Parts: sequence; structure tokens; C-alpha cells
Amino acid sequence: MATLEDIGVSAAINLLSAFIFLLLFAILRLQPFNDRVYFPKWYLKGLRNSPSRSRALVSRFVNLDCRSYIQFLNWMPQALKMPEPELIDHAGLDSAVYLRIYLMGLKIFVPITILAWAVLVPVNYTNDALEAAKMVANVTASDIDKLSISNVPLKSQRFWAHIVMAYVFTFWTCYVLLKEYEKVASMRLQFLSSERRRPDQFTVLVRNVPPDPDESVSELVEHFFLVNHPNHYLTHQVLCNANNLASMVKKKEGMQNWLDYYRFKYSRNRSQRPQTRTGFLGLWGAKVDALDYYIAEEREEVLNDPNRIMPAAFVSFKSRWGAAVCAQTQQSRNPTLWLTEWAPEPRDVYWENLAIPYVSLSVRRLIIGVSFFFLAFFFMIPIAFVQSLASIEGIEKSLPFLKPVIEVEFIKSVVQGFLPGIALKLFLILLPAILMMMSKFEGFTSLSSLERRSAMRYYIFIIINVFLGSILTGAAFEQLDSFINQSASEIPKTIGVAIPMKATFFITYIMVDGWAGVAGEVLMLKPLIIYHLKNFFLVKTEKDRQEAMDAGSLGFNTGEPRIQLYFLLGLVYAPVTPILLPFIVMFFGFAYVVYRHQIINVYSQEYESGAAFWPAVHGRVITALVIAQLLMMGLLSTKQASSSTPFLIALPVLTIWFHVFCNGRYKSAFVKYPLQEAMMKDSLEQASSPNFNLKPYLERAYVHPVFKGDENDDDCERCLSENQEADAENVLVPTRRQSQRNSPAVSRAASPSLSEEVRTVER
Amino acid sequence: MATLEDIGVSAAINLLSAFIFLLLFAILRLQPFNDRVYFPKWYLKGLRNSPSRSRALVSRFVNLDCRSYIQFLNWMPQALKMPEPELIDHAGLDSAVYLRIYLMGLKIFVPITILAWAVLVPVNYTNDALEAAKMVANVTASDIDKLSISNVPLKSQRFWAHIVMAYVFTFWTCYVLLKEYEKVASMRLQFLSSERRRPDQFTVLVRNVPPDPDESVSELVEHFFLVNHPNHYLTHQVLCNANNLASMVKKKEGMQNWLDYYRFKYSRNRSQRPQTRTGFLGLWGAKVDALDYYIAEEREEVLNDPNRIMPAAFVSFKSRWGAAVCAQTQQSRNPTLWLTEWAPEPRDVYWENLAIPYVSLSVRRLIIGVSFFFLAFFFMIPIAFVQSLASIEGIEKSLPFLKPVIEVEFIKSVVQGFLPGIALKLFLILLPAILMMMSKFEGFTSLSSLERRSAMRYYIFIIINVFLGSILTGAAFEQLDSFINQSASEIPKTIGVAIPMKATFFITYIMVDGWAGVAGEVLMLKPLIIYHLKNFFLVKTEKDRQEAMDAGSLGFNTGEPRIQLYFLLGLVYAPVTPILLPFIVMFFGFAYVVYRHQIINVYSQEYESGAAFWPAVHGRVITALVIAQLLMMGLLSTKQASSSTPFLIALPVLTIWFHVFCNGRYKSAFVKYPLQEAMMKDSLEQASSPNFNLKPYLERAYVHPVFKGDENDDDCERCLSENQEADAENVLVPTRRQSQRNSPAVSRAASPSLSEEVRTVER
Repeated sequence: MATLEDIGVSAAINLLSAFIFLLLFAILRLQPFNDRVYFPKWYLKGLRNSPSRSRALVSRFVNLDCRSYIQFLNWMPQALKMPEPELIDHAGLDSAVYLRIYLMGLKIFVPITILAWAVLVPVNYTNDALEAAKMVANVTASDIDKLSISNVPLKSQRFWAHIVMAYVFTFWTCYVLLKEYEKVASMRLQFLSSERRRPDQFTVLVRNVPPDPDESVSELVEHFFLVNHPNHYLTHQVLCNANNLASMVKKKEGMQNWLDYYRFKYSRNRSQRPQTRTGFLGLWGAKVDALDYYIAEEREEVLNDPNRIMPAAFVSFKSRWGAAVCAQTQQSRNPTLWLTEWAPEPRDVYWENLAIPYVSLSVRRLIIGVSFFFLAFFFMIPIAFVQSLASIEGIEKSLPFLKPVIEVEFIKSVVQGFLPGIALKLFLILLPAILMMMSKFEGFTSLSSLERRSAMRYYIFIIINVFLGSILTGAAFEQLDSFINQSASEIPKTIGVAIPMKATFFITYIMVDGWAGVAGEVLMLKPLIIYHLKNFFLVKTEKDRQEAMDAGSLGFNTGEPRIQLYFLLGLVYAPVTPILLPFIVMFFGFAYVVYRHQIINVYSQEYESGAAFWPAVHGRVITALVIAQLLMMGLLSTKQASSSTPFLIALPVLTIWFHVFCNGRYKSAFVKYPLQEAMMKDSLEQASSPNFNLKPYLERAYVHPVFKGDENDDDCERCLSENQEADAENVLVPTRRQSQRNSPAVSRAASPSLSEEVRTVER
Repeated sequence: MATLEDIGVSAAINLLSAFIFLLLFAILRLQPFNDRVYFPKWYLKGLRNSPSRSRALVSRFVNLDCRSYIQFLNWMPQALKMPEPELIDHAGLDSAVYLRIYLMGLKIFVPITILAWAVLVPVNYTNDALEAAKMVANVTASDIDKLSISNVPLKSQRFWAHIVMAYVFTFWTCYVLLKEYEKVASMRLQFLSSERRRPDQFTVLVRNVPPDPDESVSELVEHFFLVNHPNHYLTHQVLCNANNLASMVKKKEGMQNWLDYYRFKYSRNRSQRPQTRTGFLGLWGAKVDALDYYIAEEREEVLNDPNRIMPAAFVSFKSRWGAAVCAQTQQSRNPTLWLTEWAPEPRDVYWENLAIPYVSLSVRRLIIGVSFFFLAFFFMIPIAFVQSLASIEGIEKSLPFLKPVIEVEFIKSVVQGFLPGIALKLFLILLPAILMMMSKFEGFTSLSSLERRSAMRYYIFIIINVFLGSILTGAAFEQLDSFINQSASEIPKTIGVAIPMKATFFITYIMVDGWAGVAGEVLMLKPLIIYHLKNFFLVKTEKDRQEAMDAGSLGFNTGEPRIQLYFLLGLVYAPVTPILLPFIVMFFGFAYVVYRHQIINVYSQEYESGAAFWPAVHGRVITALVIAQLLMMGLLSTKQASSSTPFLIALPVLTIWFHVFCNGRYKSAFVKYPLQEAMMKDSLEQASSPNFNLKPYLERAYVHPVFKGDENDDDCERCLSENQEADAENVLVPTRRQSQRNSPAVSRAASPSLSEEVRTVER
């Protein structure tokens, strides 16, 4: 067990490393040649350009102004200065609300820390249970344990203090959660109703269009919506299966990079070995052309082959009201056909998953559910197998020819010390990618929902393998086995008892992962090195330099679950070992400043979901709260405080009820779009720009990114005009549909003007 | 343990009593003077009248036609003769689908029974584990046990047969469930889209209208919907809090009954003691008048006092499409205001609960959740307390003056033998009413949803206290305690082991409750006696006789959970003790015929929910399936069949997935109304009766029943005309609402004609 001094030393080391990171950061960020690494966002927004050529050569690369080095921490107040509305405008709502998670951590834990130190630390410290235990059984106990609940003797009446505090902590956390939910919900609605016109406000994603022998998907979609939303339907875009094309384009881009590289090398080393270069270059060049040819062919095929048309479409409406109605209602008798949902933002669409039928979706969900269960509990088994292979004996057995190399003493020790760990480390690095693949397989249609689902899985993984795995010994599947064979009342006891003993471990964890890790984030070592490598070897033009920047993004799927671990630790340890709390508070404060800086200057969000992740964040804090309460009950019942423990039973019941209440109250702001809001916005727009023509605006909004490049515009145009031609043909082509009497071409010509007439009469 | 002979004797007794019931029924139902007891539905529908006066006096009361007695079971084929579409037309979809539950029981269990007897009985019977056990430990085992899984020795490879059968049974059950869900969903949609125009197709219930200082609720509702559903809004009706008035009217009716009774007695005994009677009658008469006066006053107040107006309204739309849109979408930013949902059928509305605010609703839900938990597990505690009071000593202690009476030997033995049981019996009789009260307190707005929620609770109660209570010994709270202290893998074992031993008990239960109980149902002893008592003492006019009939209804809240118990028993015992299955099959078959007869001839459903209960029925059969699978796993693991048991784990996972799949596929047919359907129906109607004026049709649809009586029509008219006056005033009254520019009177006058124009142009 660590003493206070050990903790102090560890804190000093971590603080020092954090300080070094920050110092390095402060120096590096002032150098003009690092400007694109530390301020890429401003470049991407076009608000900042490369240092002007007018300056001296040296000062274009190195900052010689000594005064700027003195206040090396002045980026912190700068990061805090930007007000929230401006931040939303600058970085989007997702990022601004993401920062509120840290802020919420501060709001929850600062008062809890003060209260816990004012009440629980004295209550714990003024006992002598550990002293007594030391006398009797020679138990070693550190100073930290003297501040924790371990120091309270069995059956003590002092446990009432902990129970009351558990209630106070719960109520305070719930209060903060409620206020934050309210605030974020109103921010989201504010954001959605902000003045900007966005295509996703008018558009609905329709999936599982049923096959029809007489009509193409495009005709079918048009007829269906003309019949069922006669006054609101505007236009639609069917989706082509361009996955092949997209992968080809990607391949081409990769080749292009290589081409660039060789071309560059060639241009540099022209004097040395031109003859091999050109041949080599020619080889590559031919390949690229072939690929170009295939791409062109594939593009033709995608656009013309009816089999490539997917039974899904983006349907746009004349008003937000019409879209809101369509997105929230069921269209067809069969609830698995004509599925409508809000279209994600165009950048947010995950194109590969748009056309999965319902049965396949639910089978996929089952498969992923089962495989995630095995991943979470049994991932150690294949890793242990790999580790056994990666031992000296394993290598000698499977690859006997390596024997003489391995037998060298130095290599042997490296293999023995390093290889077994590397398998696990590799798995943990790959884990977010694995989880993301799982979510993709599951069939979500937007990047933001993919990230949300991955975050949920990552959180469960962290709880099982980091939190429980650190508290209990043994691999996850051994714990699972013991849990199944333990009674429901025994499990919290087993975990609860071990909690106070692991406090020092988690304090160290917070310092390493939280403090030094966050400081490492701000230094951005990896992007820094990669940018300079690229800059040195590849960059020739300004455009190249632009592409060499790696702004990165928040990474909700890995970042948020890690924050949630701190919530969990804080809530679990608040009534047990209050000494852990200041470390948590410091993490939240420091991380808030650092990420605010990063969001303002570095990260470039790829999409905007309008803080749709908040219900998940809220739910996970509630989960942490319930876990903390159950473990507290388990811990107290082992302290033989049987007269007081039952008073804790109400807590999880109330907390879960609170969760249900909050979701009923606020969640729909994150999944639905109120008609009142839509109507208000429509009327406002109608008043401010009555002659705006929506159709061309919406027609180009949802085009597959491979068709979006400048050179492909004509193709798209053709694709679109085809739609329109089909429209024109519809006037003449008689279909067997009885409902068509509601949808001849006249309607589209007449109804808008008429409905406008209605509207003007209504005024 | 019962032997086969014991079961045979019991079966004979129960069959005999069922036979006697049926014979009695056959005789009684043929008597004309019982006609109104056994065929009330036909009277209520006006398709049958009292026997004509032209017949002889005797034959008006007694059926003297001997031939009709011969075929005393011919009501059975008669009951089966009516085809389903006619049944739906005659008794409503609810009743027709309710019958399908029995039919589903037959569909599931007939093949399972055949298969179990063909495969499992030989597999079980050809072992000698019980013989061996008898040799060793003198265990008594009956012939029934020889047919059950108990007869298979430990670690036998024969358990594979049971596992394969468990899979086959599960797949078959799921297949039938899927088919039934599909069928019922399509029946529901068919029913909803049937030709009849119903007010609830056009109407939405709006709750939690926010208070507004400037406008009345009626104005507020009108403005809100004129603004947000400009082309669809037609009219609305605000709700008055008439609970007081309703209870007064009820009181008046009760008094009226007494008045009738005394008047009747007076008229009968006029010759004997007229002088006291009149005085007495005068006293009652005065009272009635006073009540009439209060009622009139209260009615005035309800209609005129703005505080009695509740923040809720029934809003009607011009088309089904408009109503479907409004019911399925969120209206306001704040998701707890302007809550819209489909209006229940007018008969189905539970008026008392229409105006409960959101916070109160969720608090009520919490309170009821917690109290139902205590009711289910701890109801034995107060009953044991009452029982202790009701003992001889308890009575002597609390009511010492009764001591001499009680000390009499005969009374003592009655008290001792009877009183303790009566408390429990009384509780069980009252239980459905208690559960119904709970549902009412919880705030559901329709009678059908009240019944559905009560049924769910009753089912849980039955599982805990009848199923588990019979298998395990000890009260429910003792079981709860032992479950908490047992491991998750131990619980199914504890229950699973006890299951084969309880087979004979449940067979007897099925015979008593299922066979004889159902036969008792068809006899309708209670309504028969009450009708004749009323007929003898009270009935004077034809109208009185009409009111004396007690048709009753299906009683979904108690009937359905009882059927579900048979599903549970059948599924649990199918792989364990197949001998139980024929009894279940016989129950389902017999009950199907009996209830079909009752539904055709007797029950009069008060409302029609369109089979909205089917998802709950489906869910409970799935629950039974999962319970059966878990218990099978527990049982097999005690049989030390450890090599085969893990193969069962996939079953509950697959079953739960199947449930999720089915709900995703079909459930929305029971909660939503597809727009395609609505539009189709609208167009059809538009074509068939283009000039139908909906407004007067809908305006009178949702009137509180106390205002509905004939003599009150003018009041209602006034209430409605007030609405219209308010409408008229709106033209002039300027409000502070900016949105009102969309809602002057012109809009309502102009928009319908214009939208019709649009529609005609569209054709």
C-alpha cells in the first residue's frame, strides 16, 4: 500500500512531465513553422495564411521575439476567453456541448469534494480502526487509508454520515444533470432553429422502398410521396450503390500519393538516376491511367445500371413542417417498408449502410450483440494464446530457423520482456477501430450514430475490463463465471470490499492518464512529426501543404467513454475515499482548458449532429451513479452496519426513476423536431425571402461524395436531369396505380402556387 | 405423490362436475324466462324481444318442447358456426381477437403434445432411474413420474432428446406467434380501415395545454392548431372537470334505485300500511329533489366556471391524414406540453384522468411501481396479521364482549376453520379491483389501457404467487429473500428441480380451474340469480327489464392473465412431463368453444380498442417461453448433463431477439396509424360522399357522458355554441400572439374550399 509520500512523489513526477509537455508546447506553438500543426482550424477556415514572404527568412521559421516566451501559459486564458455562442459559431454545437461534459464534471465534483473533505475526512480520520487492526494482526495501513472509510470500525454509528453523504451526493449530481440536460436541450433547439437554412431540415431519408415490377425506384418514390404528402413533397434523390466506385476512387487517391512521391523523388534526384526513375514512373503512370479508365467505366455503370439503384432515397419537402411530419410518422401498413427518418447532415451520412433491409438489420444486431459480449468478456483468451505463441519456446517451435537469433541473450530478454505485452497493447490500440467496425456492420446510417454506438460499447468495455478488472483480480471471463455463481447480494459486497484498497492505484491512474495524458494531447506530437515529415518530403504547392495538415477531431467514440470513467471513479470514491476527489477535479479543470484550446485552434469536426449524443452522456453518468450506490451498499453491508444499509435501497430506485423522468422530459428534443418550431421557422423564412427557390438548393445537397468532385459535376447533373426527365415522362406513362389519379404533373405545377395563395389569404 | 389412478379419479370428478354444469346450462338456456340471462347480447342489439304474448302463459316461461332437450350440446357447433368476419361485425374486433388467444393455444400445443408423446414419453418411460432409486432409498414414485424426465438417469445421453425437443418446441411456438402477430396486425388494420366512419379516426387527444394569462384554454387550443396545422384543423372540444358532477349523478341514480324500491314496496303493500310508507316516501322524494337541485347547480358551475376547464381537449381534423400526423408528431418545444395522442373511442375514454400534468404522472408511476412491488411480494404480511387477529384469541382480546358467543363449541370451530382462510380469499377476490385502482391512479386515459396495465400486473402476480408459489414453499417475500441470496445460476436450478414433482398438482389445478371453471362460466350462476331476483322484486316495465340484464364483458384484466398461466404451464412442462399437455389442450379447446358461445350470445363489450392488447399477449407468451427455457436449463444442470446443457443457452437469446424482431415488425400497427392508409381512406371517402359535413358529426362525438342524457342536450348545445361564439369573437379580439396573423376567421372559411380546389385540380 502506498503512503502519502508515495502518492506525493508520483504526483510530482506526473506534474513535472505535464509541465514539460506544456513548456514544450508553449515553445513549439510560437514557432511559425509549426503554425499549421497548432492552428490548423484557422487555416481550414481560411482565416489564417502562411507567414508572409515579406519577413526575414529566419523569422518565417523561428520566433525570435523573446517577449512572447515569457508568458508561456497565456494560451490558457486565451482559450477560456471565447464566449460560448461564439464557440458554437466557430466550432459547431457538438464541440461546444462536448466541452460541457468537462464543465459538468467540475460542477458535480467541486461541491462534492468540498463537502466530502469538510464532513467525511474528519469523520474517517478521528477513528482508530486501522491502528487497532495494526496492533492485532500487523496489518499495514497507509495515511491514505486513515482518511478513508476503512478507518471506521465495524458497526459504528458513524456510517450514518456516509449514508447521508451518499444521499447528498446523489441529489446534487442529479440536480446538475437535470440542469445540464435542460440547458443542452435548449441549446440544441436554439441551434436547430438558428437562422441558417440547412438541407437536412427539409429532407427525410427513406429506406426499404419495396420492389415494384412496373416502376423504377425513382418513380415509385415520387408517386408514393405525391400521393401521401401531396402538398408538401418537393423532390427526391435515389441512391446509387457507389461503394465499389468509392473504393476505386480511394485506391486512386492512394496511387496518386505514391505517384506524387515518386514524381517528387524523381524531380529531386533527376541528376543522379533518371533512367530507372522514368521507367518506374511510366509503370505507375500507366497503372493510374488504367485505374482512371476503370473508374470512368464504373461511374457509367453506377449511373445507368438499374441494379445499382438502391431501394432508398433522400426525399425533400417544400417546408420544414412537411419534413418534420414525414420523419415522425409511419408511412406504410408494413412498418418495415418506407421507413422514414430525419436525413443526417450531408457530411454526416454513412453512405455504405443506406440500403440494408429490415430482416438483415435485426440479424446483424443479434450477431453484433453476441459478438460484443464475447469480445468484452473473452478477449483475453485469444490474446493469451498469442502471448503463448510469442514466448521464446513458442517462436522456437513454430519458426525453428529463428532459433540461433533468438538464443542471443539480449534479443531473448527483449522478446521475453516485450512480446507478451505487445499483443495486449496492440489489441487495446485496435479496440476502438474494432468497435467502429462492429457499429458499421450493425447498419447505422450516419457517422454520428456510429460514433455514439461505439462509445457505448467502449464504455461497457472500460467498466468491465478497466474498472472491475482493476478492482478484482483475474480475467473478465473468470469474473463473469464467479458472478454467475454468486448471489445477487454477494456481488456488490465482493466488489465493494475491494474498493477502498484500490484507491491509490486509481489515483496514480488519474495522474498518468488524466494529467500527463491531457498535457500530451495538447502537444500533439504525432501530428507534429507527421506534418514535418510530409512537409519535408512531399509538399510543393500550397494545396499540398493544406492537405498535409492533420487537424483531427474530437473522437467522441474514444474520448467520451474515457471521461465517463472519471465520473465513475469520482462517484464511487466520493463517499469512500474522499482523498481521490481533488485529483478528479484537477483532471476536469485541466482537461477543460486543454480541450477548449484544441477545439478552438485544432480540431476540425467532420460533421455536426447538434449534440445528439447528450442523452447517452446523461445515461452513462446515471449508470455510474447507480453502480456507485450499489457498491456503497455492498461495502456498508460488509461493515456490519446492517441497521443503516437498508436506507440506501431507495437511492438506486430514485436514481433510475429520475433517469426515466429526464428522458421523458428532454430526450425527444434530441430525436424529434417539434412542429411548432418548424412552422415558426417556415413562416419566418416565407416572410424574409418569399421567392427563394428551394428545389435547386435541395437537389444538389445529398450527392454521394464520389460524384461531388469538380470534374464530375456534369455527371451529377446528368444523374439529376435523368430524374427530371423521368418526371416529365410520368405525365404520359400510365401506371397501374389507382392512387395515381392524385399525382399527375399538374399537381406539382398547380399546388405550390395554390398553396401560396392559401397562405396569402390566411394572412 | 399421486398415481395415475388418483389423477384418473380427479379427472372423473372434474369431468362429471363440468358435465353437470353443461347439462344444467343446456336445460336452463332453453327456458324462455332465462332468455335474457343467456342471450342478453341479442336483446341489447335489439335483434331479439321478449317472448310474444300470443303464446300460452306456461310456454312463455318453460320450454315444453322435448325435442330441444335431446341435443343438449348443440350450442357448441352453433357457437363454432359463425365465421370470423361475421363475428368481428357482431361482437367487435377485441372479442374476436381475444378468441384467437385460445385458438393460438391450440395451434401451439396440439403439435407439441403429439410430438412430446411420440418422442419424449418413450424416451422417458424406457428408463429405470426411478426403479433404481426405489431400490436404494425407498423413494416413492408414481406412474406419472415414470413418464417424466425424472425417470432418466443422471448423465444420460438421452437428455439430448429433451434438448432437441426444447429447440423444436421453441421454434414451433415462435412460428405460431409470428403468424398470429401478422394475422392480428392485418386484422387490426383491416378493421381500422373498414368502411365505417368513426370519430376517433379524426380526433386527437391533446393534454397538458400550458396555462396562458391572456387566453382561455379553448382559444389557446384553437390558435395553436390553426397556426401549426393550418390546412387540417377542424374543431375542438375542451374538457370540463365534471368528476364532481359525475359522482353526483351516480349518487342520484343510486337514490333513484332506492326510491324505486320503496315506491315498489309501497305499491305492493298499499293495503297494509300506507300511512308510514307515504311519509317515508315523502322523505326520500324531498332528498331526491334536493340532489336534483345540486346537480343542476353543479352543471351550471361546470359549464361556466373557467377553473373547471381542464387543460386538455379533443381536437378534430378535416381528414384522417391530418389527425394521423398530429397524433404521431411532437407539437411543442417542450415535450411535456401539448402532448398529442390518438383519441380513444368515445366509449373508451376514462374521463377522470384526462388532465394530469407530466410531473405528477411520473411521480404516480414511481409510487405505483414501488407499491406493486410490495403488493406482489409482501401481501402475505398484512394478511397474516389479519389472520392472527381473526383467531379465537385475537377476537377475544380485541372484542372481549364477544367472548361468551365465541366460546360456544360450534362457533369456535367455524371461526377457527373458516376465518383465517377468508382473509386470503377476500384479498384474492379484491385483487383485480386493487390492480385496477392502481392503474387508474397511474393516470391512463382509456379504459382499454387501464385493463391492459392491470392485466400485466395480474400476470406478474400470478407468476410470483401462483406459479412460483406452488412450486416452492414459503411466502413470496421469503422466496425473494432466498433469491437475492442465491446466485444467478442457482435460482433456475432450485426451481427447475422442483418442477417435475409438482406436475400432478398442476394437473389437478388445470382440471379444477380450467375445466370445471370454464363450464361454470357458461352456466353464469351469479347473473342468473341476480337477474331473477331483480325481475321478481324490481322490474315493472320493459326498460327495467332491459336494465336488469347483466351481460358482463370479457374482463381482459383478469381473463387474459389466467389464460397466460396455461401457456406458461404448457411450455414449462412440455419437455419435462408431457403427460400434462393433453390437459392443457383440452382446456384450450373447451374454453374456446365456451367463450365463443359467450361472446356471441352474452358479453357486451363496453368499448372497442381494435385488438390493441395483442402486443402484450405476444410478450407474455414470450416471457413464458423464456421462463420455460431457463427452468429447463436449471433442471438439466442438476441432472449432471453438463455436456449438453450449454446448448440451451442460445435459446433464450434467440427467443428475446425474436421478440424484438416481431415488435419492430408488427407493433407499430398497434400504436401508429400509417399515413398511406389514412390517405387512401380519405380519398375513398372524398370520392364516395364529397359533401358530407364532418363538423357537426365530430362536434358531438366527445361529450362527457353526464352531459349526454337526452334531457341535457340543450346544455351541451349551449356548451358547444359557446365554443362557436368564442370562434366568432376571435375575428375581432386582437391577442398579443404574433402567430395569430395566420389564424383569422377567413382562413377557416377560405382554406377548406381552396384545399378542395387544390384537390380537384390534382385529380
